[in-house]
Amino acid sequence: MSAPRLGTLYLVPTPLDFGCNPQDAGLDQVLPAHTWQVAARLGHWITENAKSTRAFLKRVDAHSPLAAPLQALQITELPRQVHKKGDHDPAQGFDARPLLAAALAGHDIGLVSEAGMPAIADPGASVVRAAHALGLAVVPLVGPISLMLALAASGLNGQNFAFVGYLPQDAAARAQRLRELEQLAQHTGQTQLWIETPYRNEGLLQATLGVLKPQTRLAVAVGMTLPEQRVHSASVADWKRQGPAPLPLGLPAVFLIGR
Amino acid sequence: MSAPRLGTLYLVPTPLDFGCNPQDAGLDQVLPAHTWQVAARLGHWITENAKSTRAFLKRVDAHSPLAAPLQALQITELPRQVHKKGDHDPAQGFDARPLLAAALAGHDIGLVSEAGMPAIADPGASVVRAAHALGLAVVPLVGPISLMLALAASGLNGQNFAFVGYLPQDAAARAQRLRELEQLAQHTGQTQLWIETPYRNEGLLQATLGVLKPQTRLAVAVGMTLPEQRVHSASVADWKRQGPAPLPLGLPAVFLIGR
Repeated sequence: MSAPRLGTLYLVPTPLDFGCNPQDAGLDQVLPAHTWQVAARLGHWITENAKSTRAFLKRVDAHSPLAAPLQALQITELPRQVHKKGDHDPAQGFDARPLLAAALAGHDIGLVSEAGMPAIADPGASVVRAAHALGLAVVPLVGPISLMLALAASGLNGQNFAFVGYLPQDAAARAQRLRELEQLAQHTGQTQLWIETPYRNEGLLQATLGVLKPQTRLAVAVGMTLPEQRVHSASVADWKRQGPAPLPLGLPAVFLIGR
Repeated sequence: MSAPRLGTLYLVPTPLDFGCNPQDAGLDQVLPAHTWQVAARLGHWITENAKSTRAFLKRVDAHSPLAAPLQALQITELPRQVHKKGDHDPAQGFDARPLLAAALAGHDIGLVSEAGMPAIADPGASVVRAAHALGLAVVPLVGPISLMLALAASGLNGQNFAFVGYLPQDAAARAQRLRELEQLAQHTGQTQLWIETPYRNEGLLQATLGVLKPQTRLAVAVGMTLPEQRVHSASVADWKRQGPAPLPLGLPAVFLIGR
């Protein structure tokens, strides 16, 4: 008797228009056909948010009919603990292996977040670690990753860069962190990237301009892949000289600094 | 008299099978239709290598007919100086603005590298900086980025990560650098990523296993998006326990370490 075939864990990227209205861009703007073809045949999903996953799968169905009706799919949400604390640090002790039981029975599973690539600036790493622990194959599919679209379009160093997540919200701690990141970028040439919740972008931009040195280069990329997409990249001195930010800052944004 | 419309600089990602034989995967495995549709209508290109760009555009033509014959396209190679030293550091003084003359006359321009996203772990940043200096819109298109496919599939921390390029080739300097990166990963939780030329991967893996602590987690992702694609992620102790690396190391690879 041979061992049952193990399922594969597919990492399925989704469009970056989550929460945007209308959410009407064709998937072929941002996903290769292969990505939605794989998604269409998966019967098991692990997700940050079941509602957004159902909405995504309806869009997939319009391009490539789902192998099973939406109601028949098994869609499992990551527990609240993962949303609150993140699941990127194994020391936090979240064991995702039980979520992968279907793969041990031979079913392929899809992992998704609300927008972009799961496990990058989003939950999901615990599920991928669990897949490796169980000996499952892990296959990432191609799709949009706002951090990298922003980095390429910034003109900053893409041969050495770091994404540091969110900055502190306390003004003094944030200023301190900005100075640390600026020093790192200036001394090592390593581009520093961070993100913020859209409604805080305007305040973050003003704080950033208030703290950084005039010659530091600052890029802000907003609404990547959306119709409103804009990337502005200039020295801090030039940002200040030209007055109000020439960007729709209420959209998801990536901030980058470098030499 | 109104000013002439300025051209846009499109960052055009290409498949990751450069140098692979046969190079026969359909573009729809790795690129959204939008990416090749934009590529098909561009008459001006800036590239790392004109030959690989012509090969890419032949593949585009099979999906979406080129607006002009291949021989009529203006394909400009980045100068040798950019290949040798990189173009990510403005201090090196390479001014790419003359390459963008066609955009000042209203033509859209595509920027490409040999594989993946231009200006990420590849030349191109000087051209993007020049575009911002000239006031051109910069629009990055979606495609495969091996660093991020590897990161998502590694199960390592994707909320805080750094790509550091290549390690030193001298054995002592490389060991020293590996220890620095391990300390950084352990103390800050920041995943560290680096790459190597394929024929050196086996030696690099052995050196890495020889230097790192048993509990450090090491992931190696090879051949991302290719049929041979494999990701292995385990503690250094487990890598050593299981003997020979279970990966085809002659392919392009990404190395990652973390907690």
